[in-house]
This record gives sequence, structure tokens and C-alpha cells, in this order.
Amino acid sequence: MSALMKAAVFVEPGRIELADKPIPDVGPNDALVRITTTTICGTDVHILKGEYPVAKGLTVGHEPVGVIEKLGSAVIGYEEGQRVVAGAICPSFTSYPSQDGFPSQDGAYLIPSGRCGCHGYKATAGWRFGNLIDGTQAEYVLVPDAQANLAPIPDGLTDEQVLMCPDIMSTGFKGAENAGIKIGDTVAIFAQGPIGLCATAGAKLRGATTIIAIDGNDHRLEIARQMGADVTLNFKNCDVVEEVMKLTGGRGVDASIEALGLQSTFESSLRVLKPGGTLSSLGVYSEDLTIPVDAFAAGLGDHRIVTALCPGGKERMRRLMNVIESGRVDLGPLVTHHFALDDIVEAYDLFANQRDGVLKVAIKPA
Amino acid sequence: MSALMKAAVFVEPGRIELADKPIPDVGPNDALVRITTTTICGTDVHILKGEYPVAKGLTVGHEPVGVIEKLGSAVIGYEEGQRVVAGAICPSFTSYPSQDGFPSQDGAYLIPSGRCGCHGYKATAGWRFGNLIDGTQAEYVLVPDAQANLAPIPDGLTDEQVLMCPDIMSTGFKGAENAGIKIGDTVAIFAQGPIGLCATAGAKLRGATTIIAIDGNDHRLEIARQMGADVTLNFKNCDVVEEVMKLTGGRGVDASIEALGLQSTFESSLRVLKPGGTLSSLGVYSEDLTIPVDAFAAGLGDHRIVTALCPGGKERMRRLMNVIESGRVDLGPLVTHHFALDDIVEAYDLFANQRDGVLKVAIKPA
Amino acid sequence: MSALMKAAVFVEPGRIELADKPIPDVGPNDALVRITTTTICGTDVHILKGEYPVAKGLTVGHEPVGVIEKLGSAVIGYEEGQRVVAGAICPSFTSYPSQDGFPSQDGAYLIPSGRCGCHGYKATAGWRFGNLIDGTQAEYVLVPDAQANLAPIPDGLTDEQVLMCPDIMSTGFKGAENAGIKIGDTVAIFAQGPIGLCATAGAKLRGATTIIAIDGNDHRLEIARQMGADVTLNFKNCDVVEEVMKLTGGRGVDASIEALGLQSTFESSLRVLKPGGTLSSLGVYSEDLTIPVDAFAAGLGDHRIVTALCPGGKERMRRLMNVIESGRVDLGPLVTHHFALDDIVEAYDLFANQRDGVLKVAIKPA
Amino acid sequence: MSALMKAAVFVEPGRIELADKPIPDVGPNDALVRITTTTICGTDVHILKGEYPVAKGLTVGHEPVGVIEKLGSAVIGYEEGQRVVAGAICPSFTSYPSQDGFPSQDGAYLIPSGRCGCHGYKATAGWRFGNLIDGTQAEYVLVPDAQANLAPIPDGLTDEQVLMCPDIMSTGFKGAENAGIKIGDTVAIFAQGPIGLCATAGAKLRGATTIIAIDGNDHRLEIARQMGADVTLNFKNCDVVEEVMKLTGGRGVDASIEALGLQSTFESSLRVLKPGGTLSSLGVYSEDLTIPVDAFAAGLGDHRIVTALCPGGKERMRRLMNVIESGRVDLGPLVTHHFALDDIVEAYDLFANQRDGVLKVAIKPA
Repeated sequence: MSALMKAAVFVEPGRIELADKPIPDVGPNDALVRITTTTICGTDVHILKGEYPVAKGLTVGHEPVGVIEKLGSAVIGYEEGQRVVAGAICPSFTSYPSQDGFPSQDGAYLIPSGRCGCHGYKATAGWRFGNLIDGTQAEYVLVPDAQANLAPIPDGLTDEQVLMCPDIMSTGFKGAENAGIKIGDTVAIFAQGPIGLCATAGAKLRGATTIIAIDGNDHRLEIARQMGADVTLNFKNCDVVEEVMKLTGGRGVDASIEALGLQSTFESSLRVLKPGGTLSSLGVYSEDLTIPVDAFAAGLGDHRIVTALCPGGKERMRRLMNVIESGRVDLGPLVTHHFALDDIVEAYDLFANQRDGVLKVAIKPA
Repeated sequence: MSALMKAAVFVEPGRIELADKPIPDVGPNDALVRITTTTICGTDVHILKGEYPVAKGLTVGHEPVGVIEKLGSAVIGYEEGQRVVAGAICPSFTSYPSQDGFPSQDGAYLIPSGRCGCHGYKATAGWRFGNLIDGTQAEYVLVPDAQANLAPIPDGLTDEQVLMCPDIMSTGFKGAENAGIKIGDTVAIFAQGPIGLCATAGAKLRGATTIIAIDGNDHRLEIARQMGADVTLNFKNCDVVEEVMKLTGGRGVDASIEALGLQSTFESSLRVLKPGGTLSSLGVYSEDLTIPVDAFAAGLGDHRIVTALCPGGKERMRRLMNVIESGRVDLGPLVTHHFALDDIVEAYDLFANQRDGVLKVAIKPA
Repeated sequence: MSALMKAAVFVEPGRIELADKPIPDVGPNDALVRITTTTICGTDVHILKGEYPVAKGLTVGHEPVGVIEKLGSAVIGYEEGQRVVAGAICPSFTSYPSQDGFPSQDGAYLIPSGRCGCHGYKATAGWRFGNLIDGTQAEYVLVPDAQANLAPIPDGLTDEQVLMCPDIMSTGFKGAENAGIKIGDTVAIFAQGPIGLCATAGAKLRGATTIIAIDGNDHRLEIARQMGADVTLNFKNCDVVEEVMKLTGGRGVDASIEALGLQSTFESSLRVLKPGGTLSSLGVYSEDLTIPVDAFAAGLGDHRIVTALCPGGKERMRRLMNVIESGRVDLGPLVTHHFALDDIVEAYDLFANQRDGVLKVAIKPA
Repeated sequence: MSALMKAAVFVEPGRIELADKPIPDVGPNDALVRITTTTICGTDVHILKGEYPVAKGLTVGHEPVGVIEKLGSAVIGYEEGQRVVAGAICPSFTSYPSQDGFPSQDGAYLIPSGRCGCHGYKATAGWRFGNLIDGTQAEYVLVPDAQANLAPIPDGLTDEQVLMCPDIMSTGFKGAENAGIKIGDTVAIFAQGPIGLCATAGAKLRGATTIIAIDGNDHRLEIARQMGADVTLNFKNCDVVEEVMKLTGGRGVDASIEALGLQSTFESSLRVLKPGGTLSSLGVYSEDLTIPVDAFAAGLGDHRIVTALCPGGKERMRRLMNVIESGRVDLGPLVTHHFALDDIVEAYDLFANQRDGVLKVAIKPA
């Protein structure tokens, strides 16, 4: 196929620009998806700034909502023309790490398994779109291991309604799932950006009944209440650790969710934890972390620190879309701005600078 | 490929016979494996007797040990000539049920997923060899979804040493895993055929420290001791339920494993259970089961009844072969007889009639 | 203390009547609670009818809401005059079964532990009020192991709001917890009496997004929708199993909850289950159960059947009251009638005959 | 009771000495135990050095093996004269944290629960002997909450055989339990002091089949092999992280267990971990810890870090003694020296300076 498409590519640090690229060929296990809506993620901003390295010329973006244009010969049970999403993380599901329970860490295609004893584990290697292969901020994207990753969109749901499923919602919910929440738990969630807001919604879905949302932005705290927060704390107005301990009568929270990636939020997440509690970490850290020995009870506090990479796969997507369809969670308030793909440089500028109360932008090729 | 191979096929109830069949073609996700050793399972005897229906002309057998003859174009990380096993159950791992945690129930290739809302679940449909597709009692077998299912055999292990991995060992160990064993548990295992013996070995591996093995055959009970049983009971010589309750001081066992498939063993497994205990069921039942209301504490005993189908996939096989390689478990005593593929009718006769103290037979094509 | 109190006692099958009994003495680990509100449970009706045997003269009832009148010498951290609830199940929490994870099966006070090897397990023996010791349908009740069982009522909650915590809510929620619900699950709940309605509310709290509630009473199905049901089915108007399979596109439900105690509901709960699904059973069965071999996939379906007895203890009560306080669940619609303790015979008559749309009755001594 | 007993008391940093103290009175929930054997723990050395503060005059030691001298009035099911152990950690089991699943963090007796909203959580407060109340290096010890904590010693086991149950064995095994080991796992254990050796034995009991034990002392590595290690690495002779990665073909281990309490062992435990792996931490840290961002995959590696405090209670002790009785684990090689209580100052000197290949010392009052 020699036809061309528009795609947002990483040129060099500071420059992501539209370019013409060939529409990719479809192998037996692939699917070509025509993008109808995608979005920009905080990670893309790190790529833009050169803080997270990707190959020059790579198409960026990892959140595909679209229509099946062409199916590989070995992919069954789908039809061309069907509306689908795929996760930001596209595991093969056939590798050793996938079968071992960690599809997001699935580096099967990077490191051949076999006699050598290598088993294909590579941290975060399940994340391919806009990282290892061309991504979704384009007119078309090639979905690898399509049989495992194409998830049909239920009739009646709009692109905007499912746009958070591939990454933000899957990540935020995983934070709540990893927190081991039980009915009646008290949970504190540090930072209420898009992922933190989804973690708040997820904590409510799992049965937490005292949800404390923390941020420095009152508007985000207001949306946190819509997502399920019972109490909101603006860290600019109070000592958050002290306040949470007071709210829990000195007991601490059953679980805390870190949704930013800084030492300060990580540390506060630990300090508010009851002995026996779980710190569920979602942030992407750029520096070494310190665990204060007192907050850690010298290692004797039955604490758990759990990290996660966004789960992908068609079953995960099916479940998340079911949550939307059920009306349990409405992520509508998260999509604050719309742009055409042609204007994506402008969209990056707005999003990277967090102007105009932006939470998430919807990008449409056509 | 129009070359022919020998294969044991189901002709009609009472007749499994050798026949010539074409060596199969290899699709992009397949691998052709030349069988070096296989075995006969109790399930094959049900097929032979017509108690479990399969298509006439199907090659039977589901336990492949062999050498890669030819790889599909999309299968990477293996070499032709490599020694491999594959599980009796060959899931795709890409389907909804696989991603949902139940690869053995993976009916993806039977029921197309998609708009229709069907999700490909079909009980036991992960079992393909000798059930839905041609099996392993042949010179060659075609392994579907080969990327997920081919497991290289570690150097230094013989075919006989890994012959139990595809089914018997995987099933028996799953019985122990499903029992939720904790260190210091007391576990009773009902029936000490090959699967029960592997369940006994598995219970020891998980930390049970009082293992009670039950059978009617003293020779099997002797082997049970080699596998880890601390106490053996011959049900012909005692009231097993009474004896187990006496051994546990009236407390009951933490878990029981049913490894036969009869009402009597199922019921005894329940009667010896402590309130809060788990009944891990491995048997293939051919009739409705009765749960006696008293043994079930009227439904108020915090009991769990858990069933399983043999887990497959290359990661499972890798782990089981690691167990063998470590010397923790020696399943050597289970392979009691050897036959050439040419003599498989004779092997069936011996095995089906449980003559000569047979536990498992090794079948070799060449 | 020789003062007298009024108490509803079991006289003989068919007769529960008010009688004068001495107010009990308080041992070092006890607390005397003045009942302000209690209720009648379906189990009490079985006692009334002589279907569940208790000692003649025993005070019945197991749902205490009241005020601490007197504390044992070894009970610390409470004050006389404090408003409290205690669970219907009052475990010691110190016994072997409690420490083993099964406090509801805590028979420590029945079977001395020690040299004999007995470990104090006895199914359902954690249930003491109105079963093994005098119960709560009285002016006062003696709470054993008070340190473990007294749960202070948060200011601002009325007796009626917490009246379901000791039994119905704890049981129904346990049904949802045992179902192993994941975000996005489809769950079917068979029977929408008070326990089934609480199971419906519990399934929603755990993240099920397609909840199918089943009953034969349209009024109860209407309340089921208030509790979180997405779909309701009246078994008088349809073939429930067929309908559920249709609703799930042939897949079956992730979990089903049985909340009645009949063969028919148990069997339907199994028939609608996906391979890999969990049947969470709450019913009290009075007859042997049959597991149909086809619905059970011959034992190869990776099915789980899990039973439960209502969890008790002050931490459980604290959590349930937190759920009420958070406004996540409103069980107000369940308390349909009010009676004075003096009129309890009349209350039994109404409740036992399910007249006047009764769900639960509140009984007040004063 | 005004009789006197000998006890080893903390006088001031650098001085633990024998003193005469009154034999304690027995309250309703207590038991007085005559110590027949106890031991010295590494924690006691920290107390001796003044690194861990306790009250002056406190009797030290937390590992009781002895005979019931006198039972409190409310303690049932035991007999005076019975041989018992109790855990180093003596939870009440009735408190909020105990019922919440964290008995070792049970501060119920420190912080009254009730109206104030305090719930009695205090990190490590389940550890009372030789920390908050008089300990076991004495002729007698008072066991609080005796109903929950007295565990009868099975006939036929010597004091020496069960001497590790109260602390070292319970802690080491918990490290293996927290590691989430599955059959066929590869596990690395950093440091092979008494706790590390028990963690090695525990990893084997849970089904790990490649156990890599690491220490700087060849004698301890030799004992590690007796406990179940398949491979031993002396960190003085190799780069341990590099070696483990080589041994696992670049994959990393499924779980690592940290059994020392230093930054270096903590960090190496993280560096050898596969994405998705668990770091089970047992060490008592005296300084802040650093998590290197690369070893942590920037927080995206699906890693888990889990800490633990030694589990106590009679059920735990019963299970550990069952392990010993079964012959699965022989901790005999750990008791290298014997002392009379009269010579305990000398015992401290030997143990604190790790002279003469000492692993653990047995101390006998009579």
C-alpha cells in the first residue's frame, strides 16, 4: 500500500509535527484501524520535551478509537467497518510474562524466547504505540496482535465516551484495584489530574466509603467530588498528612493512591497509611525515591507498596466500556477541549502548558 | 505436504486403531512437532469406550513430547530441531476467557467474538488435541497457537521425565493449588491414581505438613508415601471419614482433593472438611452429584468447592519442567510400561484394564 | 442482680411469647446492653415453627441495637451509656478457627482446646444470640466477648439506619464479597428478600456493572432497582436461565448469588454461570442439593461454589455503619413496619406470613 | 504473690543484667508460664546497645517455651503443668486491627478505642514481651490474652525443637508467604542469618524450585543448602545482581526476600526482580531507604514491596510446630550454643559479637 496518511511525529526535543507517512501494510496478525478520535497523554508531553526518548520520526500517541479498515488473514471474529478501541498497552498475551500474569510487561517481541533462557520480560514493553511502534495520532494505526487487542465499541457509545478507556481510565482503575480496597475502606488519593480522577472513580466502584481526594487546584477537587470523593483537601491550604490523620481519628487510611510521580506525594501517601495499609503507586517517577524509615515503621508495619502499568487487551477494554455503558461512571467532564489532527501542534501547546482548565483533549483526524 | 504418517484414530466405540493420515500443513501460527514420546490418559479410555464422543477418524491423545519439525511463518524465538512439550490444553491466550483468567475455557476458535456479543467461552474448549483437532498418538502433531504453547525441554531431561507435564502433573498440581494450602495444613487426597499421586506431590510442594492419602490399592498407597503422604488409608480396611476425623482430633482437614470423579469420593471429601475448608475437585463426573445438607452445614459452613481443568501454555510447562529439574519431585515411578506406537492397541488394552500394576505407559512412534 | 426484664422466649413449636426473666449478671469479659431496637429474622421464624431447634425458654433474636448498661471488669475503651450494635454472630476472635480466618465458625467455648487435640471448630457456632445463649428480643442482652463485639454507633445515625448491620447487611454483602466481583462484572442475584436486596447493593459497591436481580415479586424487584440492579427478571414471567444467557450473549454471568436456600435457585445459579464463574451461596438449605453434571461441565468448568455465614465483630460493624454514614447505600426502604416489644407476637404473625408487603420489622422495648 | 524470680533486665545502654523481681500476679485473661527454655534475638542486642529504647528495669526477651504455672480465671481449655509456647508477638486478636487482618499491629491496649474515633492501630504494638511488658529471659513470664496465645507443645517435641517457633521461624516463613511464591518460582534470599535461613526453608515449603541464597559467610551458605537452597552465592566472591541475572537468563527472579535490613540488600533485592516480581522485606531498617528509579522501572514495573512483622497467636504456633513434627524442616542446626540463665551476660557477649559460629543460643533458667 503506497497511499499516504497524516501523522504527528517526534522530530526532535521540542518538536512534534504533522508529516506524511505511508499507510502501513497489514500482516497476518495485524489490523489496520482508521482513527476517528485520539488524545494526548502526559507521557506524550515528556516525549515532546525530550524527557522520554523515542526514535526520531516515530508517530506518537497511544489511545486509539476508530474503525477497522483492514484485518490480517489470521484475525477472526471481526468485520471491517466495525468501531473499535484498543488499549494503550497492546500485549501479545502469548508470551511468558503474559501467561505469568503480567501482560503489560510483555517484551516477547523484543527478546526471543527459546534455548537462550531468555523469557521476554522487559519492563513496560507491553506499551508499543508511540513508544516502540508508530502510534495513534495519525489517520491510521496498525494494531499488532489484533486478535487480542481489538475491542468492539458497544452501540450507543460515542468516541468521546470511550476515549479514556485505552489509558487514563484503565490506569486509574488499576490504581484502585491494586489498593486492595474492601467495603468500608478509607482511601486517600494524591493528585487529581485525569489519572487521579479515574482512581477516585475506581475507589468508589470498589466500595471505599470515605474517599479523600487531594490536589492543589480547586476546580479539579470539584470534579473529584463528582467522581466520588467524600472529602477534598487542597494542599495549599492545609498540612495534608496531619489533616488525614485527624479525619481518621489517628488511625490512618486503609490505602493511599499516588497519582503524580513526585517524592512529596509518594512520601505523603506512606505517612497517612495505617499499619497494614497499601500504597498503590501510579506515578511515573523521574528520580530516585526515598522511603523515610519512620513512616515505614522500620520495615515492620505490614505495609505494601504496589506499582502498576496500565492494563490493556480487549477484555479489559470490554469491561471499561461496560462501566461507561452502565452509567456508573461518567468521564464526560474530563474531555475539556477538541482539536482537529491538523491542529495538533496547538493542542500540544495548550495541554503541555495546562492552559484554560484543560484536563483532556479530543483529537479528530477528519 | 502430501507425505503420510501413522496415527491412532478413533474408529468407533471399542476401536482405536492405527491408520495412515497426511502430515498436516503448517499455517502462520502453527508448529508441526514430530512426536518422540506420548502417553495414554484415562480420558482416552472413555473415548475408546464411546463414553466421551469425538469425531470418527480423529487422531486421539493429548500429551506431546517431541521435536519441532516446522514452524509457522509468524512464530518466533524457536528453532526447528528443538525439543519441546506442549500442554494437553492449548489455549490461544488471546481470547476473552483467556484474558479474563480462564485460558482452559478458551473457546475463541469455536465461537467468533464480535458484534454478536458472544465472547468465546465454552467449558473445556481449551482442550483441543484428540478432542477437537487431531491429537498426539501419531508420528506428527500440529500445535495451534504455537507461540503460546511450545515449551523447550531443558537439556538433561529425558522424554520420560517430562511426559507427565502436559496433563497429569499439571492437573494434579492444580488440585493442590486450588486447595488454597497454607503452611502447616492438613490435606486429604481421595484416590491415588496418577492424578491423585501428582496432587499428593503438589500438596507437599505447597507446604501441607499432614498429608493423608486414600486409595483401595496398597501399591498405590506405597507410591503415595514416596510422593509426600504422611499417612495412608486403604478404604477397604477402615471407615475413611471416621479415621480422618480421628486423625485431626475432630477438627477436620483444611482441604481435601477429589481425584476420581465419583459421588462417594466427592461426598467423603466434603465430610472430612473443617468449617471454612476447601474441597478441590479434579474428577471428571459422569453423573449428577449430591451435596448432603448435613455435610454442607446447611450452606453455613464457609465451605468452598472448587473445580479445575488442567492448565496449559508454555509458562506452565516451563514451571513444571523446572520442578522436575530441581529434583523436588520425581515422577519416574509413574511410568510403568513402554510401547512402540505400532503396539498402541495392546497398550490401550493393558491400560484400560489396569493390568500388571500399570500407572502410565510411554508410547514411542519410532 | 435480681431485677427482671421482659423477653421473647421460645416456649414450644408454634409459640414464642413474652416472659419475665432475670437481668443477667456481667462477667469480666461481658457487657450488658439495654436494647433500644431489634428485629425479627427469617431464622427466627424457623425457630418459631420448630424447624430449627433451640432450648425451651431461650430468649430469641440476634440483632442488637442499644445502649451499654454495664461493662465487665476486663472490657476497656467503652463507656456506660454509649450507643452500640453487635453482630448477630459474636465470635471470641481468640480461638483457633478465628485465628485461622473463620471467626463465624468459632466454637471455642463449646469444645475446649488443649491436649485432646480438639481445636474448637464447629460449623455456625459463632452464632450465639438466640441460638446458644439468650438473644436480643428482650429489654437487655448480655454480649459475650464484649471487647471484640461492641461497636459504637456514629453520632447522627438512627437505630433504624443501623438495624440491618448485625445480620442482613453483613450477610448480603458477604455474598457479594465471596462472589469475587471485579470491575465490569455481570452478576445475577437469585431472590430479592432482605438478604438478596443487600447482596444486590453489595454487588454494586464492589463494581459489578450489569446486575441482574431475580424474584417473583414485582415490588421487591422495584426495590432491587433502588439497590443497584440494572435488569430485573420476574421468574413468573420468563425462563430465567434462558433470559440471563440471552442478556449475556451466551457467555453467562461472572458470578451468581443464591439468596434463598432452594434447589431451584441453587441450580439456576449454576446454570447461568460462565466457565470460570463463582456461585456465591447465602441460602440456608433444608434438603440435600443436587449438582447437575451438565451445568457443572462434568467438574471441568473451573467453577467455584462458595458458602458463607454472616461475619460479625466490631470491625465489620464499624465498616457497615460507615457505608450507611457515607450515603452509598440506603437500607431505609427495608424497614417497613414498627412494633413495641409488647406486641412481638403480632409482629411474628405479620412477618412469618409475609403480609402487607413486609420486608423487615423494627421492634422497640420501650 | 510476693515470691521472687530471676530476670534479665535492661539497666542502661550496654548493660543487661540478672536481677530479682517479684513473680507477677495473674489477672483473669493472663497465664503465668514457668520458662524452661528461651533465646536471645538480634533485637535484644539492639536493646542492649541502647539502639532500640525500652524502659529501664524491663525484663528483656520474647521467645517463651515453658510450662503453665497458673491460669487466669477466664482462660479455659488448658491445664496447669501443660507445656506451651507463645509467639514473640502476643496480639489480643479482639481489637480493630486484629479483626482487620493485622494482629501484629494490634495496639488495642495502648490506645483505647471508642468515641474518640481511635482504633488502636500502632505499628509493631503487637510485640509486647521485652518491649512493652516484662519478657521471657526470666524464670517466669506473664502471658497476656492467654486464651489467644498459649499453644500446647505436641508430645515428643523437645524445647530446642520448638524454640524457633515464637519468632525466627514465624518471621522467616512470613517472608516466604509474603513473597507470593508459586510452584516453579525462582527466589533469591539476601542474608542467611537465622531469619534468612528460615526464609529459605519457607520458600522451599511454598514450592519455589530455584532458590538462590546469598550471604558473605560460607558456613551459613552451607546451612542454607540444608534448608533448601539450590544455589548459593557469596557476595564477597561475585557481583550478586549480575550473577542472579545470569542464572535466570536475564529474566530476574519471581521474588526476592530481604532478611538483613540494609540499603545494599534492599537495593539488590529490587535489582534482581523481574517486572511483576515481589520484594518481600523482613529486615529492620535503621535508616531511610532509597529506591533507585531505574531498578523501579520508574514506577511502571508492576513491582510489589511487602513488609511484615512476625505473626503470633496459638494457631500460628500450632502450624509451625506441626511443620517441625512432620519432619519437613529441621531447625536443629540453628541452635549452636546452650547457656544457663545465670550465665546470660556471657551469652549476650557471645551472641552480640557473633563469635564461635553462633547462630542461636538456648537459655535455660534451671
